[in-house]
Amino acid sequence: MDAEIIAVGSEMLTPHRQDTNSLYLTEKLNDLGVEVRFKCIVGDSRDDLTAAAKLAMKRSDIILFSGGLGPTEDDLTREAVADALGLELQRDPEIVVKLEQRFAKRGMKMSANNSKQADVLTSADVLQNPAGTAPGQWISGKYDGQERILILLPGPPNELKAVFEGECISRLRERIPVQHIASRMLRIALMPESQVDARVAPIYKTYADVQTTILAGAGEIQLHLRTRNESQAAAEARVEELADKIEDELGDAIFSRKGESLEQIVSYLLQMRSMTLAVAESCTGGLLAQRITSLSGSSRYFLGGAIAYSNALKTQFANVPKALIDRHGAVSREVAEALAEGIRKRCVSSYGIGITGVAGPTGGTEQKPIGLVYVALAGEEGTQVVERNFPGDRKRIRWFASQQALEMVRRALL
Amino acid sequence: MDAEIIAVGSEMLTPHRQDTNSLYLTEKLNDLGVEVRFKCIVGDSRDDLTAAAKLAMKRSDIILFSGGLGPTEDDLTREAVADALGLELQRDPEIVVKLEQRFAKRGMKMSANNSKQADVLTSADVLQNPAGTAPGQWISGKYDGQERILILLPGPPNELKAVFEGECISRLRERIPVQHIASRMLRIALMPESQVDARVAPIYKTYADVQTTILAGAGEIQLHLRTRNESQAAAEARVEELADKIEDELGDAIFSRKGESLEQIVSYLLQMRSMTLAVAESCTGGLLAQRITSLSGSSRYFLGGAIAYSNALKTQFANVPKALIDRHGAVSREVAEALAEGIRKRCVSSYGIGITGVAGPTGGTEQKPIGLVYVALAGEEGTQVVERNFPGDRKRIRWFASQQALEMVRRALL
Repeated sequence: MDAEIIAVGSEMLTPHRQDTNSLYLTEKLNDLGVEVRFKCIVGDSRDDLTAAAKLAMKRSDIILFSGGLGPTEDDLTREAVADALGLELQRDPEIVVKLEQRFAKRGMKMSANNSKQADVLTSADVLQNPAGTAPGQWISGKYDGQERILILLPGPPNELKAVFEGECISRLRERIPVQHIASRMLRIALMPESQVDARVAPIYKTYADVQTTILAGAGEIQLHLRTRNESQAAAEARVEELADKIEDELGDAIFSRKGESLEQIVSYLLQMRSMTLAVAESCTGGLLAQRITSLSGSSRYFLGGAIAYSNALKTQFANVPKALIDRHGAVSREVAEALAEGIRKRCVSSYGIGITGVAGPTGGTEQKPIGLVYVALAGEEGTQVVERNFPGDRKRIRWFASQQALEMVRRALL
Repeated sequence: MDAEIIAVGSEMLTPHRQDTNSLYLTEKLNDLGVEVRFKCIVGDSRDDLTAAAKLAMKRSDIILFSGGLGPTEDDLTREAVADALGLELQRDPEIVVKLEQRFAKRGMKMSANNSKQADVLTSADVLQNPAGTAPGQWISGKYDGQERILILLPGPPNELKAVFEGECISRLRERIPVQHIASRMLRIALMPESQVDARVAPIYKTYADVQTTILAGAGEIQLHLRTRNESQAAAEARVEELADKIEDELGDAIFSRKGESLEQIVSYLLQMRSMTLAVAESCTGGLLAQRITSLSGSSRYFLGGAIAYSNALKTQFANVPKALIDRHGAVSREVAEALAEGIRKRCVSSYGIGITGVAGPTGGTEQKPIGLVYVALAGEEGTQVVERNFPGDRKRIRWFASQQALEMVRRALL
């Protein structure tokens, strides 16, 4: 079965806002064995919405609308779907009472426009919305001889999730033939896409029943494997087998097999070995620490460190001798090494990381061009330093540098 | 004139990838006075793409395709547009030669499939792509009696931008009646949307000719004002007048009038006053420093600081007395204050910021719940501490805290 997602709202036709609900919905639909074949974004125009709904009824089995269910004049999804399907809207007195109660609870009187949210399409099931005022709606039936399911969902992401999880998944399961789907997401840091593909394409091409997608991000390649089979065990075995073969080829370049992030993997490894980490960041300016501490519980293995942005602070917080900076420059192998060793000593951590580089767009020279980054990792066994020339803009160079640092910790812990 | 953007690629129908090109294109089209009325995402299916192209030809004046111009079997935009318009594809020998030269320059022999990128629709103009192999294409003419412009653009964002800026903007300008558009983007930190709207709606509603949109993000409200007028000066005067009235109402809650970020504004103010900043971050774990250093040139006013994640490092790097932490707990007004004052002293900066809080999802208690954050700002005049209870998840709480810190610096510098 194929689905179509129609995101409703003029704000998503501006340069400032994007539809993100469809990513969540796609994931949930894929889990049920439903593929998303079209996504559309339509503004708050009744005619445009009606046309989009009519078109979707022709080409898609399941049509999901997100947004346009609120109380304002701009909220027109109900009306447009009624137009497209030739249905009536009827105000549901039970929903009106619930809306009034919701407002009363907060000591507010409900303004009249809110009643609009109680307008229900004839033949629709009301989908409870525990997180907000506008309920969702579910309509299924034959249109032009084809079985169709229409789902109207509220736009705010937390409400959409609450309604979809509470009311839609079980309903969809009843109507969709049981399917057994297994997937894996292999992630690889700091390897060019072409290189990964050249090595793994000969392997995955022999698995015609496993859909394999390669996605390249900043400093990372993702391999998405996905298959269906007559049983869950068979599906799992099939993706596992392919994942094994790919791992045989790429070895420990693969940092994760179930989609975990690099910071998550580093977290597992540090905790497993009861080791700790501290950082001294210059050009990344806190990005590495921010990534590490984005995980709850990171205080178990991450002590902290210094943002040694100025040279004085490299000395002050990470014991980098001023003379060393004067001799080699702040962006140098020697200073990276001293930052890593200094911060490790100061923080009394198992590992210390030092990063220094030219993130640009200014400050590059012929000898030390933009993108030149030194990353050092100091541990009990000694210190290693890597010199890299990262491509891209400031944001990308900084990201690459943090990725390099995490990858070095991971490899040291293997 | 209305535009429709069709993003081509099955990867954008997965949970992992999103179309971002359309945000860029929308901004550029809006600048030309063109509104985007529909956005669609279509997979790598020739039939689906053809149907999408046919529909777009019926309803939109300008149709932009992004992606599907590469060398692989999955790249089908050219073929689908040919099908939809009843045109032929002809291999352009000049483009083939250029492709071969491009490969030769890198010492590579071009594989045969690359020639596909030289297939040009009859009647199309070739749009040079300085950033990649696949050129864009431009077709204009009457279809069913309506003037239509079709633009085929490569999918990689840097290539799309290069082709659009190099070849499309001037062509579009020739065909679109000159329009005078002025816009402003007012940004407000840490104020609820409902409160902003209640205060400014009575003002902007009297400006029916200015389109006003309120967007709420994490810890920030944006007011987008946009108008057209018979002259650029008149358009500018009109949005300026409305912006002034809104500023009269909201005062210095507005941190920016031309869309600059909060870190950008703080950067201007610090540089204007030749002042410097240092930070000691606990729960934000480097996020604040990372935001500040995301700007090139931040070393002029940002010295660095400490990620004082563990209690020991609060003492070690920011002179927070151990006894103070023992007495009040790491998450306390007193420790925030000591962090700010300690880091200011250690870094010899004009201002010092201290942040400590419970970012969650674990570690909350009845007395110190998740979301409780103390932010302190120490300066020559003394130290101020703010206690906040931020809503949301770990990511949101940390973002709010960094927003609060920047806002405090901004207000101190006004």
